[in-house]
Amino acid sequence: MVSSLMEAYGRKRSCIRELFEFGRTLDPDLVMDFSLGNPSVRPPQAVLDALSELGKKDVHGYTVAPGSMEVRKAVCRHLNSIGKAHYEPSGIIMTCGAAAALCICMKALAIDSSTQFLAQAPYFAEYECFARGCGARFAAAEADLESFQINFPALEALIGPSTQALVLNSPNNPSGAILSESTLRRLAQLLERRSAELGHRIYIISDEPYREIVYDGASMPHIADWYDSTIVCYSYSKSFSLPGDRIGYIAVSDSVDDKDSLMASLAGSARAMGYVCAPSLLQAMVARCADVKPDISSYRENRDLLLGSLEAMGYECVMPSGAFYLFIKSPYSSAKAFSDEAKKHGLLVVPSDDFGCKGFLRISYCVDRKVIERSLPVFEKLLKQD
Amino acid sequence: MVSSLMEAYGRKRSCIRELFEFGRTLDPDLVMDFSLGNPSVRPPQAVLDALSELGKKDVHGYTVAPGSMEVRKAVCRHLNSIGKAHYEPSGIIMTCGAAAALCICMKALAIDSSTQFLAQAPYFAEYECFARGCGARFAAAEADLESFQINFPALEALIGPSTQALVLNSPNNPSGAILSESTLRRLAQLLERRSAELGHRIYIISDEPYREIVYDGASMPHIADWYDSTIVCYSYSKSFSLPGDRIGYIAVSDSVDDKDSLMASLAGSARAMGYVCAPSLLQAMVARCADVKPDISSYRENRDLLLGSLEAMGYECVMPSGAFYLFIKSPYSSAKAFSDEAKKHGLLVVPSDDFGCKGFLRISYCVDRKVIERSLPVFEKLLKQD
Repeated sequence: MVSSLMEAYGRKRSCIRELFEFGRTLDPDLVMDFSLGNPSVRPPQAVLDALSELGKKDVHGYTVAPGSMEVRKAVCRHLNSIGKAHYEPSGIIMTCGAAAALCICMKALAIDSSTQFLAQAPYFAEYECFARGCGARFAAAEADLESFQINFPALEALIGPSTQALVLNSPNNPSGAILSESTLRRLAQLLERRSAELGHRIYIISDEPYREIVYDGASMPHIADWYDSTIVCYSYSKSFSLPGDRIGYIAVSDSVDDKDSLMASLAGSARAMGYVCAPSLLQAMVARCADVKPDISSYRENRDLLLGSLEAMGYECVMPSGAFYLFIKSPYSSAKAFSDEAKKHGLLVVPSDDFGCKGFLRISYCVDRKVIERSLPVFEKLLKQD
Repeated sequence: MVSSLMEAYGRKRSCIRELFEFGRTLDPDLVMDFSLGNPSVRPPQAVLDALSELGKKDVHGYTVAPGSMEVRKAVCRHLNSIGKAHYEPSGIIMTCGAAAALCICMKALAIDSSTQFLAQAPYFAEYECFARGCGARFAAAEADLESFQINFPALEALIGPSTQALVLNSPNNPSGAILSESTLRRLAQLLERRSAELGHRIYIISDEPYREIVYDGASMPHIADWYDSTIVCYSYSKSFSLPGDRIGYIAVSDSVDDKDSLMASLAGSARAMGYVCAPSLLQAMVARCADVKPDISSYRENRDLLLGSLEAMGYECVMPSGAFYLFIKSPYSSAKAFSDEAKKHGLLVVPSDDFGCKGFLRISYCVDRKVIERSLPVFEKLLKQD
């Protein structure tokens, strides 16, 4: 006798995972696997050196629950250098990556079974699982599918008395889009107004694992600079290429109204889910490397090759300003049908249905350049088959 | 507007944490801090070498959610060598320590708000928080306070239609007691009978972080060898002295009736709480070091010194067969009053109230031997003050 919801979440694999696991059954020299966001770039040398050196040292004991003071100070220094919002160590909780951070936030804000979390589609498929996992409801407003900015009427229509937070992800997985300053300004106005009308604060949970993966000097506005009640969830998975090691944080700026109560509920939520502290060795590494910049040149080269080639063939692509995903319009009426056809050729791309919108395909280009080169004739062929 | 339960868990610190944090405000050369179970022994050299060497290598990517096949095989080899229950990699989920493992189990088994988890007092204080955190109820039956074995009438009286699992911890924190074979045989009979009567399986969740910390060749019966429906939760925190690094596992043997459904619900529960995978670097270390034995000689020396000295003074002590805690009867009628008085002398010991029973004090002796030596005159003085 087990929880039927948990059993269902355990049995129903995401389409991404299914494709990835299918890919593992194919000849590794032939498969063209664009399914997962597993960074292809090595971690920065400074990160590898820190892990190797610290591994031998006395950094394996419990830290205080939110993380060592040293690492929280390093995170604050970094955050205070890149945006206008101001952070103190008391506003930081180190976490086992961004997934943990998101779950901790949602559980802290889940009042009862009417609590609602909102997102903008396309969104990272696990948001719904995280929201329902803490007993809350989940709904998503489809983005403007030309600009991938917020469709404000669609979003406003979903906000109700039980709306606790809007989860945003910019740069976005899967579209690669960055929410612009004008979008954020308008969003802040909407949320301020609706919060006042509802008599409670609607938070933004800003899921920012791709914050440093931004191309062509694109402006990357920080959501917390535009809306005070923002809870930042960050992961070093993508920027430091160590997604398996699980290290990230929750950051709440000094401008949040009820910071004390919010931090207490976040601490309690982490505690009640067994998140004793973020891995100490990884905390010690971040304390030393918080300002290390990722080398995203190979992602940029991959993006340029893929985008240029697919557009030349006639694919309609969303211009990715950040992250390492190319989102293309499905040339077939069903994205799933295109993905299935591509699969027959060993080309693995994810239909957008799992991200809450129809008609697109996600191509994770954090892969070896040769994989992209091998895939181009297949993309060409698939377009002609249509 | 936040969850009041989560806020309460964030604000109410455990007595242990309060004492520990008070201790940090004192002169480190004068404080005698027996509050926390932070191992004083260095991690085994093989573990430090593995972490240092692997830190530089390509072991930082996502593993599959339950953990790499390599580490799950290593865990099975070890488990299959120490007990009779048989494990396959399909029954293993690597976790961020035992706290994560316990929370994942409870959430997987929490059907609705009537679900009840049982424990035996004295118990690790967080059990209640974990159970209530996943929306379930929690109750504890007091152990026989002479032998610290199970008080069967008290336990049976608590079992009802919504009882899903009994959480056991042997060797026990805080008493140091090990549940004997005859206790486990009788327990298995009770749970088999009550499961049959209720029409559903009552699980044992066996919390085993102290499994390797056993003294004087004491026999350490494995609960899973005596009761099929046992879910083992293990952590390397204590045996490898790396509590901050958060690595452990859930193990379900092949003898569990509904293994497939149970494993799916555990996977779903981990997923819904954001436990993407256990830290990859730590998984890689365990794959290499699963059979490394901890050196517990200094704990044994500490235990002998403390136990011998306190008994000679006239303290009544529970004989600790395992773990690194000494549980003594409070010489004052209130354990809290004794702890408060001790605190005035810089001696930090935890009253048993937090562990669900009254009248005892827990002394964590995983400390430098000098701390014990300095504490003895204070213990002597406190007894005379009574």
